[in-house]
Amino acid sequence: MSQIASAAASVIDLAQALIACPSVTPAQGLVFDCLEAQLAPLGFAVTRFVRGEAPDGPVENLYAVRRGPEGSRHFAFAGHVDVVPPGDGWTSAPFAPEVRSAPGGDLLYGRGAVDMKGSIAAMIAAAREIPAEAGTLSFIITGDEEGPARYGTVALIEHMREAGEVPDVIVVGEPTSVNRLGDMMKIGRRGSVNIFLTVEGVQGHVAYPHLADNPITKLVAMLAELKALALDDGTDWFQPSNLEVTDLTVGNPAHNVIPARAEARISIRFNDTHTGAGLAERVSAIAAKHGGTARALISGEAFLTPPGPFSTLLAEAIRAETGIDPELSTSGGTSDARFLKDVAPVIEFGLCNATMHKRDEAVAVDDLDLLARIYRRAALAALGAGQ
Amino acid sequence: MSQIASAAASVIDLAQALIACPSVTPAQGLVFDCLEAQLAPLGFAVTRFVRGEAPDGPVENLYAVRRGPEGSRHFAFAGHVDVVPPGDGWTSAPFAPEVRSAPGGDLLYGRGAVDMKGSIAAMIAAAREIPAEAGTLSFIITGDEEGPARYGTVALIEHMREAGEVPDVIVVGEPTSVNRLGDMMKIGRRGSVNIFLTVEGVQGHVAYPHLADNPITKLVAMLAELKALALDDGTDWFQPSNLEVTDLTVGNPAHNVIPARAEARISIRFNDTHTGAGLAERVSAIAAKHGGTARALISGEAFLTPPGPFSTLLAEAIRAETGIDPELSTSGGTSDARFLKDVAPVIEFGLCNATMHKRDEAVAVDDLDLLARIYRRAALAALGAGQ
Ligand SMILES: [Zn+2]
Ligand SMILES: [Zn+2]
Repeated sequence: MSQIASAAASVIDLAQALIACPSVTPAQGLVFDCLEAQLAPLGFAVTRFVRGEAPDGPVENLYAVRRGPEGSRHFAFAGHVDVVPPGDGWTSAPFAPEVRSAPGGDLLYGRGAVDMKGSIAAMIAAAREIPAEAGTLSFIITGDEEGPARYGTVALIEHMREAGEVPDVIVVGEPTSVNRLGDMMKIGRRGSVNIFLTVEGVQGHVAYPHLADNPITKLVAMLAELKALALDDGTDWFQPSNLEVTDLTVGNPAHNVIPARAEARISIRFNDTHTGAGLAERVSAIAAKHGGTARALISGEAFLTPPGPFSTLLAEAIRAETGIDPELSTSGGTSDARFLKDVAPVIEFGLCNATMHKRDEAVAVDDLDLLARIYRRAALAALGAGQ
Repeated sequence: MSQIASAAASVIDLAQALIACPSVTPAQGLVFDCLEAQLAPLGFAVTRFVRGEAPDGPVENLYAVRRGPEGSRHFAFAGHVDVVPPGDGWTSAPFAPEVRSAPGGDLLYGRGAVDMKGSIAAMIAAAREIPAEAGTLSFIITGDEEGPARYGTVALIEHMREAGEVPDVIVVGEPTSVNRLGDMMKIGRRGSVNIFLTVEGVQGHVAYPHLADNPITKLVAMLAELKALALDDGTDWFQPSNLEVTDLTVGNPAHNVIPARAEARISIRFNDTHTGAGLAERVSAIAAKHGGTARALISGEAFLTPPGPFSTLLAEAIRAETGIDPELSTSGGTSDARFLKDVAPVIEFGLCNATMHKRDEAVAVDDLDLLARIYRRAALAALGAGQ
């Protein structure tokens, strides 16, 4: 396994080593071997376990902890080593990391460069520079964040509960920066629920509508009412919740026939003034009023780590290393922070996300070192160890 | 061709002979040979021609005329010899006519028994009993009424125009009776237009709706406005026009994606206060208002032969033979009367429609004779020849 970097490797060597282990979601094996080979020499007790069965598993997970002095604080890094499929059209092979020079400085190409093997490399490099006596440090790393995430971070949290591991704060290494490293961190995310609406009617001929019961008429009225719902006006930290109709299905090829059934799918992205279950109930009531039914699939609840000491110390670490004042945002999709919020205050901060999930995913080599320094500074501050 | 009945055959023999010629739409050949073999000996000049190409053709048509004395009136029988496919599950073979006794009297089974080979047999029998000196009598018979009808009655009308054939009135032999022969005739039919609605939007992620433009939102608002349209309250002779949404299509499997395009199809059945083009224009304007487009396919305009001398003489013929006062209706789907209305006043009257287009289609044997007598009486009255 020549690809696994030595313990003294630089951040870029670590990132290259991780990228060189193909780990399309769900990930197992090699990429975790690489991770363990880095953490064990730094004094971490590494636990790896595989959970779940097809189709949502099996998934490998890793929890590593290096305990500080009795009663010390506990800082956790969280993230994932699985990646989305590379797709076609890459300039160089997606799992063969390659550094190429560019006008703004060298770039490291490879699937996972920013989402988020580069961040994990920076976490490892940061951990190497944090003395064991500063406090307890841990890594919460899953092999399924990009997939169904059913046996990933959820299983890690279960493992931590059983082991009595309770971090004081958690930083998730998702690529939250937009234009420059440090310009944005995520202190919350909206929740997400998909709701499947069905209206059953009575099929018939359009010439005799009184003998039929057109389910589309009811579905259209239902969707108009749902779309007119004023969910909220947003909060200090969240934009207003939003409902989109994402699909309509009837599939009736006969021009003269009133169909028997009509279906729609809606997606609601909601802030912390709602819960998925509460929204599902409201939508169900409106569906029922129009003679239909609703089935909800909650992808994740909203979370918010309100601005306070944790966001302040992270922002100060970013400012000290980059000179940038990070925006505290709650925009974008969901992440594993939706699960970790139940364990401890959680904030997401990582590399620039311009190329995440795209072909020719790349990270600025300089950003890797910078991120390692920010992570180190933030962890030391959170552990109460200062600089 | 032993199946072709002799000139002296009874109505049931004629009906059986026609049913025994399989003629799933579009019809050509044999069934027209059978028809010609009946009409020619009665003194009719028969013209047959084939029009159109696949997929809507070729279609055979027959125009037969027996001219009365100079200046006499012209009465036309119209109809079709094509039939809808028999489908499965028949008790006896659909193209092997079979008489079976039943509690209410003998029934003749076979595809086309009521729609409308039985009616055509009754027309031929009636013609045999109408003296040539009573006036001009004609048959306008197509081989495609049940299909696209593009090269059927439309082509017959063209032929008649070129030949200077202009009937004074036309009776179409569609099965208009409901429970008992004679209980309903159709003095009009609603028009029909299908309109295809499309909204193009901008695809995007549901988490960033401001970067997308959801076409479903616009389509739902458009359909709600269309469904709320008060087209009319009906007229003395027509029920209110009606709009149904018959299909919705998006086809977006991705839960988190706002789709780029949404489509719907509507069907409007309209009375004679509208035209297909006028409705298409109104719907287009509403579609445009919501950022969409509309493409209309007019199946047929509404027609009405207002109650008057023609409906009265037909009703009197029915009453004289059956004792029943027929209802003058405009209900149901469309028929070739939508084309024939441009040639002369047209009314539809024929057998009981309970089994039309179904398996085990059957006609009461007694009704065949009764219908022949009604047709004869009506034609004589229309020709001004009395009884
Ligand atoms: Zn990620
Ligand atoms: Zn018919």
